[in-house]
Amino acid sequence: MSDPGATVVPSSAPPVPSGPPPKLTSRGRSTDPVASSNSDSSDVPEFEPFGMPGPRGFPPDFLDIFEVDMMRGQEDINRKQHRTDLFNSVDLIVRRGQEFQVKVTFNRAYNPAQDKFALEFIIGTSPHYSKGTYIPVYPNKERRTAWEGRIANTSGNTLTIGVTPAADCIVGKYHMYVAVVTPFGIRRTRRDNSRDLYILFNPWVKEDAVFLDNEEEREECVMNEFGIIYHGAFDDIAERNWNFGQFNYGILDACLYIMDRAEMPITNRGDPIKVTRKASAMLNSRDDEGVLVGNWSGDYIYGVAPTSWTGSTDILISYAKSKMPVCYAQCWVYAAVFNSFLRCLGIPSRVVTNYYSAHDNDGNLKTDIILNESGRIDRNRTKDSIWNYHCWNECFMSRPDLPPGFGGWQVVDATPQETSDGLYRCGPASVMAIKHGQTCYPFDAAFVFAEVNSDVVFYSRSREGTMEPVKVNRSHVGRMVLTKTPGDTTRRDITEHYKYPEGSTEERTVLEKAESYGCHREKSDPPPADVDLVLPALEVTIGDDFDLNLEFVNNSDEQRIVDAYISGSVVYYTGVTAAEFLFRNPMVTIGPKKSVKELVVVESKNYLKRLVEQANLNFIITGKVQETGQIVSTMKVVPLRNPKLTVTVAEFGRVSEEMTATVEFTNPFNFNLEGVYVRMEGPGLMLPKFKYYSLIPAGSSLIWVEYFAPLRAGKSRVFATLDCPALRQVHGQATITVEP
Amino acid sequence: MSDPGATVVPSSAPPVPSGPPPKLTSRGRSTDPVASSNSDSSDVPEFEPFGMPGPRGFPPDFLDIFEVDMMRGQEDINRKQHRTDLFNSVDLIVRRGQEFQVKVTFNRAYNPAQDKFALEFIIGTSPHYSKGTYIPVYPNKERRTAWEGRIANTSGNTLTIGVTPAADCIVGKYHMYVAVVTPFGIRRTRRDNSRDLYILFNPWVKEDAVFLDNEEEREECVMNEFGIIYHGAFDDIAERNWNFGQFNYGILDACLYIMDRAEMPITNRGDPIKVTRKASAMLNSRDDEGVLVGNWSGDYIYGVAPTSWTGSTDILISYAKSKMPVCYAQCWVYAAVFNSFLRCLGIPSRVVTNYYSAHDNDGNLKTDIILNESGRIDRNRTKDSIWNYHCWNECFMSRPDLPPGFGGWQVVDATPQETSDGLYRCGPASVMAIKHGQTCYPFDAAFVFAEVNSDVVFYSRSREGTMEPVKVNRSHVGRMVLTKTPGDTTRRDITEHYKYPEGSTEERTVLEKAESYGCHREKSDPPPADVDLVLPALEVTIGDDFDLNLEFVNNSDEQRIVDAYISGSVVYYTGVTAAEFLFRNPMVTIGPKKSVKELVVVESKNYLKRLVEQANLNFIITGKVQETGQIVSTMKVVPLRNPKLTVTVAEFGRVSEEMTATVEFTNPFNFNLEGVYVRMEGPGLMLPKFKYYSLIPAGSSLIWVEYFAPLRAGKSRVFATLDCPALRQVHGQATITVEP
Repeated sequence: MSDPGATVVPSSAPPVPSGPPPKLTSRGRSTDPVASSNSDSSDVPEFEPFGMPGPRGFPPDFLDIFEVDMMRGQEDINRKQHRTDLFNSVDLIVRRGQEFQVKVTFNRAYNPAQDKFALEFIIGTSPHYSKGTYIPVYPNKERRTAWEGRIANTSGNTLTIGVTPAADCIVGKYHMYVAVVTPFGIRRTRRDNSRDLYILFNPWVKEDAVFLDNEEEREECVMNEFGIIYHGAFDDIAERNWNFGQFNYGILDACLYIMDRAEMPITNRGDPIKVTRKASAMLNSRDDEGVLVGNWSGDYIYGVAPTSWTGSTDILISYAKSKMPVCYAQCWVYAAVFNSFLRCLGIPSRVVTNYYSAHDNDGNLKTDIILNESGRIDRNRTKDSIWNYHCWNECFMSRPDLPPGFGGWQVVDATPQETSDGLYRCGPASVMAIKHGQTCYPFDAAFVFAEVNSDVVFYSRSREGTMEPVKVNRSHVGRMVLTKTPGDTTRRDITEHYKYPEGSTEERTVLEKAESYGCHREKSDPPPADVDLVLPALEVTIGDDFDLNLEFVNNSDEQRIVDAYISGSVVYYTGVTAAEFLFRNPMVTIGPKKSVKELVVVESKNYLKRLVEQANLNFIITGKVQETGQIVSTMKVVPLRNPKLTVTVAEFGRVSEEMTATVEFTNPFNFNLEGVYVRMEGPGLMLPKFKYYSLIPAGSSLIWVEYFAPLRAGKSRVFATLDCPALRQVHGQATITVEP
Repeated sequence: MSDPGATVVPSSAPPVPSGPPPKLTSRGRSTDPVASSNSDSSDVPEFEPFGMPGPRGFPPDFLDIFEVDMMRGQEDINRKQHRTDLFNSVDLIVRRGQEFQVKVTFNRAYNPAQDKFALEFIIGTSPHYSKGTYIPVYPNKERRTAWEGRIANTSGNTLTIGVTPAADCIVGKYHMYVAVVTPFGIRRTRRDNSRDLYILFNPWVKEDAVFLDNEEEREECVMNEFGIIYHGAFDDIAERNWNFGQFNYGILDACLYIMDRAEMPITNRGDPIKVTRKASAMLNSRDDEGVLVGNWSGDYIYGVAPTSWTGSTDILISYAKSKMPVCYAQCWVYAAVFNSFLRCLGIPSRVVTNYYSAHDNDGNLKTDIILNESGRIDRNRTKDSIWNYHCWNECFMSRPDLPPGFGGWQVVDATPQETSDGLYRCGPASVMAIKHGQTCYPFDAAFVFAEVNSDVVFYSRSREGTMEPVKVNRSHVGRMVLTKTPGDTTRRDITEHYKYPEGSTEERTVLEKAESYGCHREKSDPPPADVDLVLPALEVTIGDDFDLNLEFVNNSDEQRIVDAYISGSVVYYTGVTAAEFLFRNPMVTIGPKKSVKELVVVESKNYLKRLVEQANLNFIITGKVQETGQIVSTMKVVPLRNPKLTVTVAEFGRVSEEMTATVEFTNPFNFNLEGVYVRMEGPGLMLPKFKYYSLIPAGSSLIWVEYFAPLRAGKSRVFATLDCPALRQVHGQATITVEP
């Protein structure tokens, strides 16, 4: 025993606790965990006494609920009025800020002077009035809450009640209770799945942050399941069909699951800025076990090749079912699935393609190409890449967090990149802010600005290591931005949404503004060489031999001799070189004010064996003018054209009437194709299907006939892809008009 | 064998790959991995031939390097001029944008006309000129790079070379090579740790983004290891001493390790915006296995109680050594260790304390308190909390990413909170932007704005569930912001940096601006009640009985009767209630224009057994005026005063001369203290030490005598803490002047 008053001596060692450390709690930090799952919910008591002692039981004439009808059928008015009739779902799905109706039948006629009842809407666990997760709605005007209620019709004991959810309410799955006030307490309906309802964003009402005042664009950017995604090169554009499938069975639940998986607080889910930002992180698997695993390696044996997908349905359903990231994606897959997510929730969105997109260069405004002293490209020292194209999304919303004028279309991008504030997500960045160089505004405007505005800087590196900028190409990057035309299958050039015309005064001002916000540009402006290199556009089918028709134009009054380096490589669509298959080093003499053509024959046998992925060839021609020491250069990406799939369907069909689609393909090469997947689907026509062929010998054909019954009327397409390691990105499609 | 020309049939199933899936590569995505470690480095060849065939060996008169002297000693000029002499390190440590000198001795005299050599600075793997990770410096002006070089002195075969790193160069650990150009190639020095050097931020040069034009503030916010952190309540302020220890042995390497652990790209490490943002994420262990594990549970048996730490040294060294998060922290520990990190790297910084900080309320401008119909607080429905105080950091830098005027002090906060853009980090947010309601600017300005500007809204909830705002208190939150005065041990009130005076026109304008950016406020303005509640400030020592002297003031011309609810609780410093220990429900009658005092005796026996953590009591008094139905309320946090530790040292000491510090404590309670840690340290005096006492019986004392030898001259303090589950946050300190 220690003696009080004595001096204590220190113990030799503190005790070491045994067993695992306790799970950290937030006790002392918060009174309640943050609700972040829309699939969990807390139970609300069926009877809530007022706490006064009193008689049990109920007065004989008390109001009792006999039946509740959510009016969720195809014949009810809610689906049509809320434009949710395309959803393949039995539940009530409505849009916020707009009235929907439900019917409540009581045991007797409702007496407004005496009876009190409320419809209660609850979302998530720990519902709370001031968090907007518990919303009582009263049928009379005297007692108003954020959601409006009114009695639309009375018929005997049945009331039709109109409910208008607040235009900024949480988006997700709610449950509705009916609660009646009795003298002894509140009595409410028992929980029942039939009284679940989904509330979505509403671009049709002015008060919603996603309001878009253009019916044609709303029809395209919310309602259209069919998409066209552009790829290839700006001067040889290719198209890819896509089925966003946002109304397919299970997709809406999958989209809500994505936010649950992100543990996104329920209370944030009414804000399109937060929803889109969070989704841009969750659509990729980095950081957070999100939807899609990116893979640019060429090895897709453990999943589906990015080029093989035909739509989003399989991806979203598989993620929600397996709760595991889906393999594999590249930029257009991220953009397409993100688009499905956004359209499904009611946020207007579209996929856009930026040709020559500056990437992975850390958000500065320079892409460096290093040449050695004689003007030849130094591949070891050239680290930055320019993607042949890059796809992202635009979504439409107001931006109350920014000064006026920056609402409207916003860039969001789910493709994982290096430097979006240190995390794999990007946006929403105001397109208007990008156009005006206001890169100071969140989120990631500076990053997107660099993707469309970087300069390509050629450095000459001396053998002692000194570097000198010798040429700056200010117009290569962000060459063109395309999206699908609303209501049509043509393309729409929206480059001017992102930038002022090349060389205009506004463009210079914008670049200076962006620079003032810390984007670093190459300041020096080396004088242009007086010799131009011209490489005309080329359209080449895979397997063809073809000619490069390189022209050297001498603009000076003296003779010029150019030591030229002509390099042809197979590249990934990310601009990364896989292999150089062609190299020439001609010396070209050009008379004053003359031009000389240099013909280079490209033989397919040289490139065929080295092709990767999307079969892009990249030609870089650089050279040094002997007389002046100036550097000349030109670059061109040539996407090789693939053989086609032939898809055949009847021109007309009828809803629910069975018909066939036929896919045909003949291997045109003198080598076998192995491990071949063929995929087919059609918006409103057919869910995704696939067939696997272990071998298609050289010259052989395949024929696949598939039966289907159209789900709904309208014009649509059946489209198919063929994909194998030796040949990717083979497409085909056929248009069909379905009559009711 | 398949027959070419035949039709192929699909295989029954695709092959299932065996074995683990391949490791994803970035092949096809990038040419080079991003360098993100400052401890790795690539080797540079000692000889780099020019690639021409030619004779081997070297010409007899070629310039050869005999010796390189980094001039890193205490007697060399570099340390003093760069203000890095306090660092306990043998390496050269300099600040960017300012010349340092090295000496190179050759085999013969250097001939500028003929000899070519360069100093090469390299950081990280894959050094690259255009990324700023490979910087050659030439001693002659004709060939300039981003870093300037000059020959400061020539003495025989020895050159003294002055090198000025760019004022925006990467901050971290470099290696210096000397490279000589010979006719056949480049020859350079072999890698040797003695030629490592550290380059830090430099608040002393105008060109650096962290330039701070005030010598007194630089001395405090970069050079001072001793800190005072404020806590308690705004009307009963308490202090905590802290040893930031930024110059202690190993701390600089630990700070660089934190960025390595975050895999922060080397190229971002010259930008104070990116460094501080990344560090705000890395200082806490959430998401990223960062430095400190937060724990507000009261159970600290598996680590060190947050209240027990005396400085940052142990924490940073332990993290760098074990590579595991350190247990445990609360807000001031995060802020203090973050401060060490910032000062160590040369970014001016200070710890600030905000009293009544609105938190965990999702960044809106409302903290809701729910009362029932009779005016009593409904603890189940009141979810938001107001922290008694919260600590964060301010750091000083320009903000080229924002419009002019928002540079200067920036808020960064490493305490993990719910809603900082979905991740556990916060800032840098411009203090000027917060003051002006410009919450649209990154990063997290809106969140910090809410911490100092939220309104407290009292709702009255009817028994049927309807809610009505009955009182809005607009001045409770953000009551005062304090930091230590530069060059002094007093406190400095910097509330006006964050807000205009309560009730001023500017304040209203600012709140409207913030609202326009989407911060939601309570719009309604219920008329103030004509009865006031006044609860005077209290200073109470733990274990004392005391009186609440509550005054009811009737401002009307009629009698008023108030049904009052007086509730006293033990709370965490986060405002979260642990237990209610006092409740009274008096009915108070006040004559016209009169006031009535209600005396409530608080007995220590009621609160002592329930105390948590920092021993805060919280009194909330609410009530309803019978005549008008108006709600009255007042709230007050009373931090109980702890017994003190007695720390004794001699008033004067001498560098390196051994002396003693004595810590004494007597258990003043009538119960035993168990599991007691006592910690002691002193900036420039003593590294952190601790002793463990398994038991201090009631009334017993401890005496701890520790020997130490001061490291350097100046005024400093020895301070100590005592901490055990039953009694936390006991401090003591003693001041000493050390003579050289």
